[in-house]
Amino acid sequence: MYLETIHEPADIRGYTAEQRRALADEMRDALIRRTSCIGGHIGPNLGIIEATIALHTVFDSPHDKIIFDVSHQCYPHKMLTGRAHAYIDEAQYGDVSGFTNTDESTHDIFNIGHTSTAISLASGLAKARDLAGGSENIVVLIGDGSMSGGEALEGLNTVGELGTNFIIVFNDNDQSISENHGGMYRKFRELRETGGTAPDNLFRAMGLSYRYVADGNDTEALIAAFSEVKDMTQPVVVHIVTQKGKGLSFAEDDPEGWHRHAPFHIKSGITKKATVPDPYAAATVAFVLETARKNPNFVYLSAGIVGGINLSPADRTALGRQYVDVGIAEEHAVAMASGLARGGARPIFGTYSSFFQRTYDQMAQDVCVNRSPAVFLATGTSLYRSTDVTHLGFYDISIFSNIPNLVYLAPTSVAEHIAVLRWAVEQTEYPVMIRMPFAGYEESPYPVRTDYSTLNKSIVVTEGADVALIGVGNFAVLASEAADELAREGIRATVVNPLYLSGLDTALLSALGETHRLILTVEDGIVAGGFGQKVSSFYGERGGVRVMNYGLPKQFFNRYNPDDLACTYHLTAPQIAADVLREMR
Amino acid sequence: MYLETIHEPADIRGYTAEQRRALADEMRDALIRRTSCIGGHIGPNLGIIEATIALHTVFDSPHDKIIFDVSHQCYPHKMLTGRAHAYIDEAQYGDVSGFTNTDESTHDIFNIGHTSTAISLASGLAKARDLAGGSENIVVLIGDGSMSGGEALEGLNTVGELGTNFIIVFNDNDQSISENHGGMYRKFRELRETGGTAPDNLFRAMGLSYRYVADGNDTEALIAAFSEVKDMTQPVVVHIVTQKGKGLSFAEDDPEGWHRHAPFHIKSGITKKATVPDPYAAATVAFVLETARKNPNFVYLSAGIVGGINLSPADRTALGRQYVDVGIAEEHAVAMASGLARGGARPIFGTYSSFFQRTYDQMAQDVCVNRSPAVFLATGTSLYRSTDVTHLGFYDISIFSNIPNLVYLAPTSVAEHIAVLRWAVEQTEYPVMIRMPFAGYEESPYPVRTDYSTLNKSIVVTEGADVALIGVGNFAVLASEAADELAREGIRATVVNPLYLSGLDTALLSALGETHRLILTVEDGIVAGGFGQKVSSFYGERGGVRVMNYGLPKQFFNRYNPDDLACTYHLTAPQIAADVLREMR
Repeated sequence: MYLETIHEPADIRGYTAEQRRALADEMRDALIRRTSCIGGHIGPNLGIIEATIALHTVFDSPHDKIIFDVSHQCYPHKMLTGRAHAYIDEAQYGDVSGFTNTDESTHDIFNIGHTSTAISLASGLAKARDLAGGSENIVVLIGDGSMSGGEALEGLNTVGELGTNFIIVFNDNDQSISENHGGMYRKFRELRETGGTAPDNLFRAMGLSYRYVADGNDTEALIAAFSEVKDMTQPVVVHIVTQKGKGLSFAEDDPEGWHRHAPFHIKSGITKKATVPDPYAAATVAFVLETARKNPNFVYLSAGIVGGINLSPADRTALGRQYVDVGIAEEHAVAMASGLARGGARPIFGTYSSFFQRTYDQMAQDVCVNRSPAVFLATGTSLYRSTDVTHLGFYDISIFSNIPNLVYLAPTSVAEHIAVLRWAVEQTEYPVMIRMPFAGYEESPYPVRTDYSTLNKSIVVTEGADVALIGVGNFAVLASEAADELAREGIRATVVNPLYLSGLDTALLSALGETHRLILTVEDGIVAGGFGQKVSSFYGERGGVRVMNYGLPKQFFNRYNPDDLACTYHLTAPQIAADVLREMR
Repeated sequence: MYLETIHEPADIRGYTAEQRRALADEMRDALIRRTSCIGGHIGPNLGIIEATIALHTVFDSPHDKIIFDVSHQCYPHKMLTGRAHAYIDEAQYGDVSGFTNTDESTHDIFNIGHTSTAISLASGLAKARDLAGGSENIVVLIGDGSMSGGEALEGLNTVGELGTNFIIVFNDNDQSISENHGGMYRKFRELRETGGTAPDNLFRAMGLSYRYVADGNDTEALIAAFSEVKDMTQPVVVHIVTQKGKGLSFAEDDPEGWHRHAPFHIKSGITKKATVPDPYAAATVAFVLETARKNPNFVYLSAGIVGGINLSPADRTALGRQYVDVGIAEEHAVAMASGLARGGARPIFGTYSSFFQRTYDQMAQDVCVNRSPAVFLATGTSLYRSTDVTHLGFYDISIFSNIPNLVYLAPTSVAEHIAVLRWAVEQTEYPVMIRMPFAGYEESPYPVRTDYSTLNKSIVVTEGADVALIGVGNFAVLASEAADELAREGIRATVVNPLYLSGLDTALLSALGETHRLILTVEDGIVAGGFGQKVSSFYGERGGVRVMNYGLPKQFFNRYNPDDLACTYHLTAPQIAADVLREMR
């Protein structure tokens, strides 16, 4: 075993080609074994083993800086930088995160999880080096669909005039998470087919030098290429062609399905525990297919992650030209949705809450200033969803509830979600965003309307007095459960489903103010800038009503236990009920 | 006179070349005359007269859709689409806005003011047309530095596989607002020098067809080129080379100075009314120059608008390699700032509040998740600054005060601004953003600290009881003035300078809560998601204190009178004092 003897990259620098081949085999086995147990981004990591060995053979990390874009392909890097134990010892699998993490190692320069950021981040390192008179190499590994993101393209252009050492390794595996999209990928194919000599090379068009490595899984070829560009004093792109999922037949055959995978049986490739289908995603897919059949002007937009609702290849085929995947380009998707709506089509653009962050300006300027009645679907919207610091889904209320003209809705059940979605697609008055509930919570049994055009109309779902609980979206049932606990203590609390995040039902709040002295808001998001603070502001001006805002503090959290986090911030029914009892006494 | 007879584009379609030449001359005269009286984007509009005539000769607007990126170059378009009166009749100069405006004309398809959005917006129109089976041409006019923006580059890539009619007119005037930056511009120069034949063409690299027009101020050549691509069934770029400021010698000689210009004397080019220098910008420039001299690792970043603080060419020369202009690429600038800070440099990136909107995700992910101690300077932060709906500077508190780890500060005087800036650059603990005050307000005489590392420490500037006024940043003096008015009525109000927008001084607020029953927050921004609502939330939990949030409602406003707007929302000292008196009785 080589792997267990590697504590730092220097340990592999004296290896022979034969030893490197053996090391790669070991790493591949370890990756497959580990992912079969705990899941992870298996495809990207299997493809990049050889390149990582070559990088750490040629460059002197952490003196030389290697920045991994998205960084979901950093497992081999972690194996070679003092963290092999987390890949070979089952008991220690949980010791490392799935992304580069500055708390784990000085070899990890940034915490990265969103795509297309590494060139820009690294360009700052290069400039800082030049100001300080340093001579270290700055190396970026980017690919896997990330090159189409605006931040990466801005970075390419700027780096093009940097005039200093800057090495971009472009990992071309002809694959994003789902298939690649965009004109540049057609040209990348031409480059692959011509050994890197096809005309109209994007990188050269941005003013960069260019090298081509046909087999990006050939460690020795990579070492030769990296050695050639090491210490170069001009920005250069090394275009390497790798195979996503290399060495695991299932992953080679189905790169989309194995981009990230749940634990599986190594022999059969069968998933160990059948994933429970998300009823919200399933209902949304059914709605999308039905709507597309009925309305030829309906279109579903995706930005590289199959719409955030796992549209299957069959679904996408069924949608045909009514499905558009723009690749990793969320800003473009939002603006395109605005143009579609302005042109008379009825678009939905769906992606994760965390990726919608990219589109604040497009949502404000391209959509809302123009009052384009496009529909946006934010998924992964819960503290229970992703627990990686770069993919948290609980900032969106604070972001999107404060953009003028945008109607932001938080349904509380599958039926309400679809009713809201149906209304959003049928109306042409407002830009509408919908916070798709997280499937891990219980659905509300609340009544469902069909028309939501009277904005900001909240519904009292339980009549009470003195205390009112306003449970937002995901936390509707939490509010109802807290009310149930209070009922057992003899307190009949009012429960409200606000539904609208972007405005208040001031008439209802005024009425509640007459008969209630304590109002609780409960949201699956940060309190700062969120829904509850708007309620506090409303009652603050009137006086006489106390308002308690439940939610998360304005912080980043990483790899936390969601139950613990919920408990810490009293986001459980017994805690809320106990708080109320204490306050009412 | 042709111009006054033109009511719609059809009116010019039968023109001879001679008539078009005469029309262009008239338009140029009218533009110069109008701008000399009321100012405006003179350079871009003088450059695009011939292209606009050609577009409206060849295409049938509004059936064919012409989308203007940034749209500050739409004056000639407005002249030819029923709005000539606003360019030839001095009494009607104020009838139209400086950007395309859907309320003004069906020839204006979107309200656009931010750069780099038009390709993405128009791609939605193209897709909507294709779904509906339409045949109109979709035409985008983009250039003037916009091509480097991420959204435009994402758009280029996606359009590259659209496979349908989509015409991009790339207006290459070798100039952004300040000079162009980035590798692509070097390659554009090669295209200009080779009549469009140089290798590694960015547009072709994105999968688009390409045509070249050497003289983009030759109407007849443009008509020929546009006729050729009209009704084309593949996306195509028509690269036209124009002269910014054409026909006005001062503007031709100094394209940066005349990109946008104040009213001027036509003969001499001298500005009619000397612009009052902004003391905040001037002090910032002095600070930047001084810091650069002292600290070789200090660097100032700009994204195409000379840092938001009007760094002169001489200043930029003095800064040398300690000044980086990335061109129009705000996302890149923020990420690069993070990399610079991580690499040990001390960066400031400055731009307008409205353009910082683009960077929410980079600020959150690239900077704040990484706790990179970069410094950001938001300018144009007031309801009194830009009154165009696309450039409003009063949403930033609601956006940036809710990002974890970011310290957002609102100083109240030049001295405090520079003290805060100095601290921000010297410390290496926190990412810091500073809301540069608007020069139109009076400076506060408040005491200035030198150390701001005890976060969220507010200062009581006037001791009082019962009522406290918390005046944020720009509105510090407004709060003090309201307190003065109250003093005349016998009420001694407390006045607080909060300074920190990103957190509360809970100890101070608690203490105030003991002796005050009414707290007013006053901020030059929208109330939703802003500072005041955080104060309301704090007191809402405790009860017993009423909080009134002064600021703007969550709305878009366009071409408003700032004094009227301030009055409508009681953002004047007499109104605030009167409100307090009424509430206290």
